[in-house]
Formats: sequence, structure tokens, C-alpha cells
Amino acid sequence: MERLLKQIEFIKEIDKIKFIFRKTKLISSNRNENDAEHSWHLAMMAMVLAEHANEPIDLLRVMKMVLIHDIVEIDAGDIFIYDATKNHTNTEEELKAAKRIFGLLPEEQAQELIALWEEFEAGETADARFAKAMDRLEPLLQNSSNNGGTWNEFGVNYQKVYDKKKLIKNGSETIWEYTEKLINECVEQGILKR
Amino acid sequence: MERLLKQIEFIKEIDKIKFIFRKTKLISSNRNENDAEHSWHLAMMAMVLAEHANEPIDLLRVMKMVLIHDIVEIDAGDIFIYDATKNHTNTEEELKAAKRIFGLLPEEQAQELIALWEEFEAGETADARFAKAMDRLEPLLQNSSNNGGTWNEFGVNYQKVYDKKKLIKNGSETIWEYTEKLINECVEQGILKR
Ligand SMILES: [Ca+2]
Repeated sequence: MERLLKQIEFIKEIDKIKFIFRKTKLISSNRNENDAEHSWHLAMMAMVLAEHANEPIDLLRVMKMVLIHDIVEIDAGDIFIYDATKNHTNTEEELKAAKRIFGLLPEEQAQELIALWEEFEAGETADARFAKAMDRLEPLLQNSSNNGGTWNEFGVNYQKVYDKKKLIKNGSETIWEYTEKLINECVEQGILKR
Repeated sequence: MERLLKQIEFIKEIDKIKFIFRKTKLISSNRNENDAEHSWHLAMMAMVLAEHANEPIDLLRVMKMVLIHDIVEIDAGDIFIYDATKNHTNTEEELKAAKRIFGLLPEEQAQELIALWEEFEAGETADARFAKAMDRLEPLLQNSSNNGGTWNEFGVNYQKVYDKKKLIKNGSETIWEYTEKLINECVEQGILKR
């Protein structure tokens, strides 16, 4: 029962992720997305798009990665991807958050989830490359379906979007081909500035 | 590319689940939970609690089940579990919704997800029994952490809660043992009426 009580504490603690809001707005809405919604959507995308991965992936590991990847933001907050003043690499603060929050779990589960989170952040395995592709694609689908979403608000132009999104190529050439077309269409529609 | 375009249409359509609100409120908050947040939380619970399943389960299948189980509510809406005037079995309306929404996907993917959703609804396999246990446990954790949450508001008493929650036993005896204790504590604390 002691293991279960630790697991329940963790499950209650992560409810807080529902209050961490992202810069990106939902499709056809002006409400910002929170990290629980975002993580659910990435897991659904991984499930449905797995066949397009460049390399063989372990779907269960990828789904775990995307479901947990933003839990550290409960302590460390969301960093906007186009904010050039902030360091986007695995920060000290995020590592501390991972240790505190995953550390509520029984030891070997905590270690498994911290390792999965670090693997996602490093982005150097096939699973992490595909998981990161999902993380880059979702806000593009939202902004392109939502009249440019937050792009104009934050002065984000074609080149900035292209530079951030090209990471998708490492996870899936097929999805990258689609992404390039979609970015160009956004420029043609006038919702993304050159 | 035609398969990918269908998959993208599905991914965009299911964004709407973020607007389907449940009766249950979040832990330490008076805001209602939406179905995307709920589904994310169930997948995290399945990941962390899998060891307590009565029978061997396939975690990937369980996670898929809980992630998709409420997608039909985009068309059919949320039915409150304590609403005795509504039929809680797999309704005609929900089946129609499953066919429309999962039907946006390529044929064999649509069939896989409709079958998984039907398996969850029927609750007759080990995977479905454990998935349903997660679905019953989450709102109990919320209401018990949130001063009784929606129980008083909707006149839900001990017996009603007990009757709905005992399904957890089919998925996990260990989690059921914890659940029974938790329900009794809620009565002692005066947040659930006898
Ligand atoms: Ca429901």
C-alpha cells in the first residue's frame, strides 16, 4: 500500500499542469491551451501518425514521453518557443522540478520518468526525435487553423517559424514535406509574414 | 500523402474535445475539468498504476483506450454519471459519433479506434476493466481533495458513490481497497453524506 500512496500523491500533484497555460491558442478559439490539453493532443498525434516516423519507434515510449514532457512546467513555467531572451535547453530549474515531481513516485518509477524526460529534452534517439516532431507540429496546426493565432501578436515571421519547425524533419520526412507546404500556404493566405 | 491528410483532419477535429466540460471540478479549484485534461490524467494514471492490475494488461492498449474514450462526446456531449434519467450504455448517438469522428481516419485506423472504444464501453476484457477503473478513480481523487467537489451540489451520497466506484474492484483489488478507505474518510470528514 505504501507504493500506491506515493503513486496517488504524484497523480494528485500533476493535476496542477491543467493551470499551466501556453502561448498557443486552440483551433477556432481565442482561449489559450493548457499543458494537459497539449500533452493529450501530442499523444493522440503520436498514435495516429506513428507510421510516418523515419526510423522504427516504440510507440508506448513515445506516448509516455509526450504525456510527461511538460510536467516540469508545474514548477518551472512555460517558456515561449520564440522568446530569444530565454534559454530553451534543459535548465537547472527544470531538472530540479523533474526531481521534485517525479520524485514523489516510488524510486524506480521516478528514475524511469526522469530518464524519459531527459531523453525527450536531448532529442537524440528515434523515439525522442519523433516525439519532438509532434511537439512542433501541434501549434502549427493550431496557428494555421486560427488565422495565424499568436504569430502576429508576437511578431513571429516565416523565417522564425521555418527555423523552429525544421526539427520535424528529423522525426519524419513525410510530415516535414506536409509542414513546408502548410507554412507556405500560411504566407500565401497572409496570416504569416515573410 | 492522402493518408496523412486524413490523419491531419482527424487531429484538427479532436481539438474540440477541449470544449467538452465534465461535471467534476479540478483538485483545489472551482473550475470544471474538460475531456482532454481528463483523458490525459487517465493515461498518466494507467502508466503509473499498471502494476496493480488484477490481470496482465497491455499498457499501450489501455493508454490508447483512455485517451480516446471520450472523443465521442464531441458530438454526443458529456453524460453525468449520477444522472439516473439518462442511459449510460453505449448509445446510438455515441456510436454515430464514433463512426463520424474516427471515420475521418484511413479505414483500418478508424476500425481499430472504433473497436477499442467499443471494447472500453463493454468493459469485458482485462484492458477495458483496468481502463474503466482509472475512469472511476480520477473524479474520486478530485472530489475528495476538493471538499466534496460536486457531490453536495448534485445530492450524491455515500451509497451512490460506492455503487459507481465498486467497478474499480474488477480492474484492481489493491486500488479498490484504497478506494473504500478513501470513501469512508470522506464520510468521516463530513464531505460525503451517509
Ligand atoms: Ca464520460
